[in-house]
Amino acid sequence: MTQPGTIHGVGLGPGHPDLMSVRADRLLRGARHVAFFRKAGRAGQARRIAEGILPANVVEFAMEYPVTTEIPLTDPGYNACLSEFYADSSAHLRGLAEAGEDVVVLCEGDPFFYGSFMHLYTRLTAHVPVAVVPAITGMSAAWTATGQPITWGDDVMTVLTGTLPETDLLTHIRQADALVVMKVGGNLEKITRALRAAEKYDAAWLIEYAAQPDQRVRKLSDVPPGGAPYFSIVLVHGQGRRP
Amino acid sequence: MTQPGTIHGVGLGPGHPDLMSVRADRLLRGARHVAFFRKAGRAGQARRIAEGILPANVVEFAMEYPVTTEIPLTDPGYNACLSEFYADSSAHLRGLAEAGEDVVVLCEGDPFFYGSFMHLYTRLTAHVPVAVVPAITGMSAAWTATGQPITWGDDVMTVLTGTLPETDLLTHIRQADALVVMKVGGNLEKITRALRAAEKYDAAWLIEYAAQPDQRVRKLSDVPPGGAPYFSIVLVHGQGRRP
Repeated sequence: MTQPGTIHGVGLGPGHPDLMSVRADRLLRGARHVAFFRKAGRAGQARRIAEGILPANVVEFAMEYPVTTEIPLTDPGYNACLSEFYADSSAHLRGLAEAGEDVVVLCEGDPFFYGSFMHLYTRLTAHVPVAVVPAITGMSAAWTATGQPITWGDDVMTVLTGTLPETDLLTHIRQADALVVMKVGGNLEKITRALRAAEKYDAAWLIEYAAQPDQRVRKLSDVPPGGAPYFSIVLVHGQGRRP
Repeated sequence: MTQPGTIHGVGLGPGHPDLMSVRADRLLRGARHVAFFRKAGRAGQARRIAEGILPANVVEFAMEYPVTTEIPLTDPGYNACLSEFYADSSAHLRGLAEAGEDVVVLCEGDPFFYGSFMHLYTRLTAHVPVAVVPAITGMSAAWTATGQPITWGDDVMTVLTGTLPETDLLTHIRQADALVVMKVGGNLEKITRALRAAEKYDAAWLIEYAAQPDQRVRKLSDVPPGGAPYFSIVLVHGQGRRP
């Protein structure tokens, strides 16, 4: 019987190739098979980060999301459609591993922190060897880009998604010392209202494309009304104890 | 006038040298001056991670904490003593930069996330060029070590320090979906009581020395009474939406 290969879920970090780990860099340079998620018709952010690092003859498997924002999250069809997509993608990767091939799955950010790879992981880990390489998160790149530390002393840091209802955002924003809001995009107005109600609007920052070529860092109060890219992050820095 | 050098605050990640970034690895290999914090009489965790990567002729500057846990945090002497220490350390690094030397400051974890480097950063950044390299956090290594994703869908993640009062721990633990408690050490019993009161004790994990040679991962309910190393992390995984 063939010795199974390993599926490596490799975090690539926030976007700059220099910010991937030495282990990730080595796995990419030695890869025979890579897989990555992308929106249909796009090159894919994870694949873009890996450009120039993967071997020329690597076999690529693009996993194209069947839906992203076309169907609301609350529609039962959304879950069914994605579930089938993850099952099919996992079956393909499992087949490669069972044939003895190692596969590197390219993951933006950290694979276990709000990552799509998790949906493959849960479907694969009982059947074939799966190894996960942690990575620098987008939020680390975002607070580094502001030039201010995010947490001091005993600061409580809360990470929220902008997709939450406004009342939930407000409750958590009130109680946090340091705050990170992910998945901002079209939720920016709602997030802004919650920040104002919690009296934290003036301290908030908007970071777009942290550690990527288009990085942009502004105080939220300097941002004109309108949306922001989905992969933007809103931050409020903690103000805890410092000698 | 001499062109000033740059102070690089370089995050080394959670402990395994392979988990530092490509950028950090390159800065360490090219360093002429390094500085790092350590407890008096110890080799220092940051320095240990860099072993075998730094050039043989690098000039080392060990910054030895004058106090760690000997004086309570609430004692005014604690802050005064640390403040003088950070001022002296910053003055030394500033002198090197003003003489045109680049300096790599070795930082465990991510420099802007509960890191001692922040106290140098605030004293240096107005005077000499300072650059910060983000890194994989200890908490990323900890959740990766459990083999379970930390956040799904719209999960709210809260990061606490075990040094907080028990009532504060309880309030935040109740409201979090995914939970990370840093600085566990002698606070483990207090954290355990708060987790029990919030009915999250059975779901909690204790990770000691994540991504380091002595890594140990256990359900908290399998840990006999007693303390844990200071750099342990307690986790509760989020259970959010997953297709």
